[in-house]
Amino acid sequence: MIHSGPLEKDAPPEAVPDYGAYEPLALDRVALRLAAYPEVAARLGGRPEDWRVREVGDGNLNFVYIVEGPAGSVCAKQALPFVRLVGESWPLPLSRSFFEHAALAREAQLAGAVPQILRFDGPQALIVMENLATHVIWRKALTARERHETAAPVLGRFMAETLFRTSDLHLPAARKKREMALFSANTALAKITEDLVFTDPYRVHPLNRWTSPDLDETAAAVRADTEWKRAIQDLKWQFLTSAEALVHGDLHTGSVMVSNADGAEDVRVIDPEFAFYGPMGFDVGALLANLFLAHFAQDGHGPGAEEMKAWLLVQASRVWDCFAGRFGELWRTERGGDAYPVALFEAQGEADASQEALDAFLARLQVDALGFAGAKMARRILGLAHVSDLETIEPASLRAACETRALALARQLVVERGTIATVAAACRRAASLSGAAT
Amino acid sequence: MIHSGPLEKDAPPEAVPDYGAYEPLALDRVALRLAAYPEVAARLGGRPEDWRVREVGDGNLNFVYIVEGPAGSVCAKQALPFVRLVGESWPLPLSRSFFEHAALAREAQLAGAVPQILRFDGPQALIVMENLATHVIWRKALTARERHETAAPVLGRFMAETLFRTSDLHLPAARKKREMALFSANTALAKITEDLVFTDPYRVHPLNRWTSPDLDETAAAVRADTEWKRAIQDLKWQFLTSAEALVHGDLHTGSVMVSNADGAEDVRVIDPEFAFYGPMGFDVGALLANLFLAHFAQDGHGPGAEEMKAWLLVQASRVWDCFAGRFGELWRTERGGDAYPVALFEAQGEADASQEALDAFLARLQVDALGFAGAKMARRILGLAHVSDLETIEPASLRAACETRALALARQLVVERGTIATVAAACRRAASLSGAAT
Repeated sequence: MIHSGPLEKDAPPEAVPDYGAYEPLALDRVALRLAAYPEVAARLGGRPEDWRVREVGDGNLNFVYIVEGPAGSVCAKQALPFVRLVGESWPLPLSRSFFEHAALAREAQLAGAVPQILRFDGPQALIVMENLATHVIWRKALTARERHETAAPVLGRFMAETLFRTSDLHLPAARKKREMALFSANTALAKITEDLVFTDPYRVHPLNRWTSPDLDETAAAVRADTEWKRAIQDLKWQFLTSAEALVHGDLHTGSVMVSNADGAEDVRVIDPEFAFYGPMGFDVGALLANLFLAHFAQDGHGPGAEEMKAWLLVQASRVWDCFAGRFGELWRTERGGDAYPVALFEAQGEADASQEALDAFLARLQVDALGFAGAKMARRILGLAHVSDLETIEPASLRAACETRALALARQLVVERGTIATVAAACRRAASLSGAAT
Repeated sequence: MIHSGPLEKDAPPEAVPDYGAYEPLALDRVALRLAAYPEVAARLGGRPEDWRVREVGDGNLNFVYIVEGPAGSVCAKQALPFVRLVGESWPLPLSRSFFEHAALAREAQLAGAVPQILRFDGPQALIVMENLATHVIWRKALTARERHETAAPVLGRFMAETLFRTSDLHLPAARKKREMALFSANTALAKITEDLVFTDPYRVHPLNRWTSPDLDETAAAVRADTEWKRAIQDLKWQFLTSAEALVHGDLHTGSVMVSNADGAEDVRVIDPEFAFYGPMGFDVGALLANLFLAHFAQDGHGPGAEEMKAWLLVQASRVWDCFAGRFGELWRTERGGDAYPVALFEAQGEADASQEALDAFLARLQVDALGFAGAKMARRILGLAHVSDLETIEPASLRAACETRALALARQLVVERGTIATVAAACRRAASLSGAAT
């Protein structure tokens, strides 16, 4: 079921706001600002002076405040006109907040499993959301070897619903093109991915870092690996040109929150500020990449690794299986777009041909996902942004050993993705490289 | 060399005009209107009452006037808010004139070989161009078995320059995305292609027509050919999602004008109102398709067919060879975009790897072109819009025989494009089907 939202026929047009009145919020100004939003004030209860505000942003780009009041709590996320981690020397447009909200609203409409939006203040680049007080970042839960069994199926379903329902399989071509044009202005964020994922790790670049000196030779070998580089550029070409669906664009395990309050699991996808029309396999690959990275990190985190390693590979397979299963349901029941029209298949009594087209479509998407997974793995080991799963491993030599095995899979996924072909086969390769039981 | 134009860094932003003051031109109002444009009046010379105006539009969509004055002549093309061929029951937005002009201006800047624009009156959906008085539509020249030896090389080069220079191989990603967003609003024209090329010929549809009753069984067999339909939908998916470059979008032999005045050949590409960001192979395929159709039509046009049949296949090969050759030159000298960056290849002394990436890129593009060629051939025999090359063949049984052979190649190109792989191999198949010497 699709809920009301920005993809309805009569939804008002959206445009990047004017940021002339933008003011970055200092900690002591947050309560006053939120008090101006009735729906937010009501959620918090009491008076602004009763509200407790703390800054919790552990990401690289924005300010994130948790505000707690007598009646409830909220999360307020404000973009800054530069990359928070780096400072004003790396400007980044405030419009990413607009695109994050636009994507969140679509995800809420099409798939759920995102935080509820209480208020979007466009000109302030500020999104006020429900506070997921009992949730933790999935990556942290995985590092702590906690197992949330519903994460993989929820995420598989989430990706199927967001990707299918924003694509030409579901939307009329004109509507899809309007969506694509809207998000095409989110170029600054896409450029980060273009550079940090698909380019910089494969050349000498001051932003690169790796476990040194252990991986110095490996990094040099990657930079000279023309087969790898060509395959990475084929994937970058897809990233640049393949406008298949509204992708989250940064769907790693740090963009997922999980909770197990009162024994009931809950899973949410956050932070879609990289959203744009790109290849469907990019989101699926991002998630697989981070499960594989978590898998290879286990040997760096002490006894008991084996069970978690196996569990992580099972989750990777489940992500794909649940994605493909839900995608297939939508193919059969909601294929109302211009692509693969029902008029040419089911309406002519050719359901088998439709199923074959679906199978081929998913087979191609799966290969794409494997390639993007490999690209996303390598950049976390050789590029600017690393993952805590690996970063927290000491000593460095142990970390380097884990990273070397992860890089071996990354290369295989990028270069041999067509031969590997399936997530199940990729999991077997991962297990083989890490010495895990399958 | 790239000339000044809309792709320069400081070019002003473009937007679809307001059509509130739009007035369709009646024949007797044309001179008065053009007199208001000084650059046009100067080209014509004399006074408006001295100008001779005639309507020559033989296309399906617009009014086209030739205006001759004492000093020179011009061509004025005005869009109507509906499809001219059908009438007001098939509305079509005036904005196509804006996109045609925007594409013409880019083609002029990037590749030349288009008519010179004298005046674009956006709100009147009116483009005033130089009159190509000595030129004829290439399709007509081909039907008359005239051979313009420079057409294939000029068109191969034109496609290489427009496609390469509007792609991520040449433009920075943000600039390319801005271009893509601009042309993404040209959805009504793209929808015509989506329906008439990729959908309607493969189902019962009132707009379809074919040589009946001769091809009744063939048309029914195509509608039930699930392998063909699946392959066509894979191509439609590419058409809908693959935003590789600014394609002309309708580059058949009726969108090319040739001249041989005073023994000097001249070749121009006209009518890019279908322009949008799509797969590079679409333009190449469109041109190949129409050369193949001309090839298969020869046997319907009396004695002397063999030499022309062979010549046409040579032109198809030359189109590809000249396209690939020029594309390769640009790859080596103008690869300044975000895709396949020089920094990862040539700058690291890896020119061989760059060449291999180019070879693989062109191999993939060639396969795409073959598939789109097949799609464009079939729609001209089974869909709404046919080509005069075949339409003029009498009796119908002879025409049907030619069309049957053309359809056989069309199916092979669509379904077996990966196996056929090269334009040269496609030409051999065409020759084999038509009994031509190779």
